[in-house]
Amino acid sequence: MSTRDFNEHSITDAVIGRFASTPDLRLKQILDSLVRHAHDFIRDVEPTYDEWMAAIMFLTRTGQISDDKRQEFILLSDTLGISMLVDAINHRQPAGATETTVLGPFYVQNPPVKPLGADISAGLEGTPLYVSGQVTAADGRPLGGAWVDVWQSDNDGFYDVQKEGEDPELRARFIADENGRFALWTLVPRWYPIPNDGPVGEMLAATRRHPNRPSHIHFMIGHEGYETLVTHLFVDGDPYLDSDAVFGVKQSLIVDLDGGKGPAPGRPELKSWKKLDHRFGLKPAGRQG
Amino acid sequence: MSTRDFNEHSITDAVIGRFASTPDLRLKQILDSLVRHAHDFIRDVEPTYDEWMAAIMFLTRTGQISDDKRQEFILLSDTLGISMLVDAINHRQPAGATETTVLGPFYVQNPPVKPLGADISAGLEGTPLYVSGQVTAADGRPLGGAWVDVWQSDNDGFYDVQKEGEDPELRARFIADENGRFALWTLVPRWYPIPNDGPVGEMLAATRRHPNRPSHIHFMIGHEGYETLVTHLFVDGDPYLDSDAVFGVKQSLIVDLDGGKGPAPGRPELKSWKKLDHRFGLKPAGRQG
Repeated sequence: MSTRDFNEHSITDAVIGRFASTPDLRLKQILDSLVRHAHDFIRDVEPTYDEWMAAIMFLTRTGQISDDKRQEFILLSDTLGISMLVDAINHRQPAGATETTVLGPFYVQNPPVKPLGADISAGLEGTPLYVSGQVTAADGRPLGGAWVDVWQSDNDGFYDVQKEGEDPELRARFIADENGRFALWTLVPRWYPIPNDGPVGEMLAATRRHPNRPSHIHFMIGHEGYETLVTHLFVDGDPYLDSDAVFGVKQSLIVDLDGGKGPAPGRPELKSWKKLDHRFGLKPAGRQG
Repeated sequence: MSTRDFNEHSITDAVIGRFASTPDLRLKQILDSLVRHAHDFIRDVEPTYDEWMAAIMFLTRTGQISDDKRQEFILLSDTLGISMLVDAINHRQPAGATETTVLGPFYVQNPPVKPLGADISAGLEGTPLYVSGQVTAADGRPLGGAWVDVWQSDNDGFYDVQKEGEDPELRARFIADENGRFALWTLVPRWYPIPNDGPVGEMLAATRRHPNRPSHIHFMIGHEGYETLVTHLFVDGDPYLDSDAVFGVKQSLIVDLDGGKGPAPGRPELKSWKKLDHRFGLKPAGRQG
């Protein structure tokens, strides 16, 4: 078709036609779909010139506030439910496999390896929590030797990488025993706000959305022959379970923290402590569910 | 609905539900539509985690390369046909009104006012071009006293603001006479590439698209009681008329440059020159077509 006389409808095919020679067919598929959906969006809302310019400047600021410690576009993707949608599409689960949720921005590669039962709370204040668990295949067979990365925020809602100082806090790797079992001491996590002093915070404020995530502990769990599992466990009773700012909650990931009874494992001096125990099911590698 | 057990389909309504308390109903309309179309796009292409991260980093770099002299998100909007679509939606034209096209990034507020017939080429090399025109209402009535801003690239494809030096070149404002007529001397424009050393350039290279815009002269024309007209005139015969990188060409904006015959207006010494004459029709303010 002529690209000299397109109108507000025919321009879409004109633009897609311009991608006809793209050698990477997957890239072509993505761009074709992007243009079709983006143009449909524009035709749907019919932005004024000023609204279009406001969007341009919002996206520009979102890029410019990002650096090696902050990723505002991931936050935007999270708060619009896009990250969880991508997660859902990529993790259609077989029965018995643990559900997945967002990675979040605070994972650190190669955390310090700690012995089973170690305390990762680094002397921070909070209620002691004994976490025990078992890593299995989706069908229930134990996966001995699985690695288990754990990380979480402190009692004020901050991760170690958000604070001064270089020492890891509330973050470690454990190697499960021959039955796939692992255990550690940490603190009861607290809900916290995502960073909300940037463009995403403006969007949340303008739409009267709070920036909070319900309290949770992050897990990344791997074993040869299985897909690496990225998930959280959420604490039942948290006030933000039904309104997580990044839409990360799933019912199957909400756990009760029971009051510990009797002597605490390895810490008989503790008078007040909590505990949780959870089975994590891994999906065999290379299967779509 | 519960936001604890959404799936890859129900998550869209869950996210939109989160905008329910947005006080600005226009903002709510835009965000609802954005989420619906963005999620449809994700479900359509089913990005892998790596593809999603590549998109995050592309958008981040697009923001970070932008500054007060370069706007890469506008360039991205331009090259995906979004700018021209927004333009088309906002300028549904009555008969007799000149068609609009993109503003581009090189307009400067309050250019120097020059007398009718002045030469704006500032001593630069190129083929002299005599531009004459008339500003009228869409119904043909002359609009005396209309202001006419003109700007264009030089013979190498660069605008003055892209070069060293502070003096305006190939850029001026004229005030039309009582019959709406104006005239000026400039140079025949040349096609040129949009900036292609950033993320947009990567996209164009990956899709085997050239970055060029066909040769054109920019006009912004205003008169009290009429919508300000933003448009170009394109030179017939240019090799990129059918593949403008930003989709800005419209058939009605392509003009012939005739060889000048006889003595050139005000410059009798010129042996070789070109000319064009064009009527610009302005749309009454506050009408939708």
